[in-house]
Amino acid sequence: MLPPKVKIVEVAPRDGLQNEKDFVATGLKIDLINRLAKAGLQNVESASFVSPKWVPQMADGAAVMAGIERRPGTIYSALTPNMRGFEAALEAKVDEIVIFGAASEAFSQKNINCSIAESIARFEPVAKAAKEAGLRVRGSISCALGCPYQGDVPVASVVDVVERMKALGCDEIDIADTIGVGTAGRTREVMAAVSKVFPRERLSGHFHDTYGQAVANVYAALQEGIEIFHASVAGLGGCPYAKGATGNVATEDVIFLLNGLGIETGVDLDQLVEIGDFISQAIGKPSASRVGRALLAKKRDGVTPCV
Amino acid sequence: MLPPKVKIVEVAPRDGLQNEKDFVATGLKIDLINRLAKAGLQNVESASFVSPKWVPQMADGAAVMAGIERRPGTIYSALTPNMRGFEAALEAKVDEIVIFGAASEAFSQKNINCSIAESIARFEPVAKAAKEAGLRVRGSISCALGCPYQGDVPVASVVDVVERMKALGCDEIDIADTIGVGTAGRTREVMAAVSKVFPRERLSGHFHDTYGQAVANVYAALQEGIEIFHASVAGLGGCPYAKGATGNVATEDVIFLLNGLGIETGVDLDQLVEIGDFISQAIGKPSASRVGRALLAKKRDGVTPCV
Repeated sequence: MLPPKVKIVEVAPRDGLQNEKDFVATGLKIDLINRLAKAGLQNVESASFVSPKWVPQMADGAAVMAGIERRPGTIYSALTPNMRGFEAALEAKVDEIVIFGAASEAFSQKNINCSIAESIARFEPVAKAAKEAGLRVRGSISCALGCPYQGDVPVASVVDVVERMKALGCDEIDIADTIGVGTAGRTREVMAAVSKVFPRERLSGHFHDTYGQAVANVYAALQEGIEIFHASVAGLGGCPYAKGATGNVATEDVIFLLNGLGIETGVDLDQLVEIGDFISQAIGKPSASRVGRALLAKKRDGVTPCV
Repeated sequence: MLPPKVKIVEVAPRDGLQNEKDFVATGLKIDLINRLAKAGLQNVESASFVSPKWVPQMADGAAVMAGIERRPGTIYSALTPNMRGFEAALEAKVDEIVIFGAASEAFSQKNINCSIAESIARFEPVAKAAKEAGLRVRGSISCALGCPYQGDVPVASVVDVVERMKALGCDEIDIADTIGVGTAGRTREVMAAVSKVFPRERLSGHFHDTYGQAVANVYAALQEGIEIFHASVAGLGGCPYAKGATGNVATEDVIFLLNGLGIETGVDLDQLVEIGDFISQAIGKPSASRVGRALLAKKRDGVTPCV
């Protein structure tokens, strides 16, 4: 039995745009977020309150949050790497903060020079303050299906990080295949394992399409009862290190799957395809969404492609 | 339980190249087929003995078949639309002939101006002659998951065509999502239904990735016990009607899934990625395989993309 309803967390405004070289104007970010919320996305990852030295693209988080319309019921999230980021997020009135860690010890050491356990422990004051302020707390676990440094990531490592994030009071936990190497069997194995230690309905799947597996992984995770998925309109979020490699799964492609399965999302696919076209043109990149490209071609040429 | 072993029918030399505008040199076709067989593909769709007036790209079928090495155990197939095509295929010593029909009445009427039943009946002498000559006969059913003209295609129509092809003595029958609109649930429904009237182990899934669903559909079909899949190296086989729309699922992406699931295919992924690069460069088109692009970028740049 697949879940009857799914929540999509739209990550294009943050995860998608974060790696863009040219600064994306604040007004464009605001426009994108507003359109996405209007198309029915219930949760939009909108900003990252990280040092502008690290991620200059996200330096305008406060202005973005101040500029957007707040649709009732929509959750606007932001990444908060530390207390300073949290204070800024609180000031900006985000609905949900996102804390993060890797499931790979090699990745953690290489990137932030500390163990997984230490990196999660550092978020303790942030999570505590967020709960006290009445904000939702989401925990995001990268490299959950594979790591660029150590390769295989044991399922037990993912379970361990889930338990640590649960202890911090996370309302929702993301299982992220950051480098897109996961396939359907491993996805199910990991989702089944983490469901045993954290409520299944508050776990999410965040899949990258680098190896073309993301839609299949969504289908695999649905079969394990997962009801929340991350996606990025137009597949925004290319890889800064490798030309041609694709990043986040395109929201359009995930919605096409879910519509076909008769699973309710509340998202309007036509509007979404228009938004994908709008943002792709605005930043001057072709859309990575196959659904977006096919439906736009069909509209333009008046034919159903590929007979 | 997923099948422990899968056969891939590589369709790039025929289905993939058929729609190329510029004539692909006979020597290049031969080279492609030889490399694919060497990489472990057990069945290569190599030619189409159709009138050169209709499909000029395939006019050199006899020369292609005469020029290739014959790897013992590899099945080299060719499309044969009529007795004339069959005679040419027999002369060219193909191992398997392919006959075809649509599961959509609207498609059949619009494209060949006759009913599905009539179109299949026309293949009766071809199938009979092929069996008498000791050749394998494969039946291919297009529009099995959706039609550009009538939209929805009833499952019963697909079952009906399978029964007609079975009556002609087909050894293998392809369920083809020609326009790529099928999603995982419908794939399973159709595969389950046709498995009731034809041996499951001789049914195949032929999925187009136009809407990004093909890998998920392979995974869905595997769960229905399907053990044969069609794929095209580098995703060759774009759509002549719509720029940007993708065609056949890339063999690399399917093999990546199957490797991840621990399913044996006998195909060497590294060789396959090289072949995808070779043919993409030779015809001057970017590869549509995400695995191909990611693994080539990794090799080139020395990094695992998308951390």
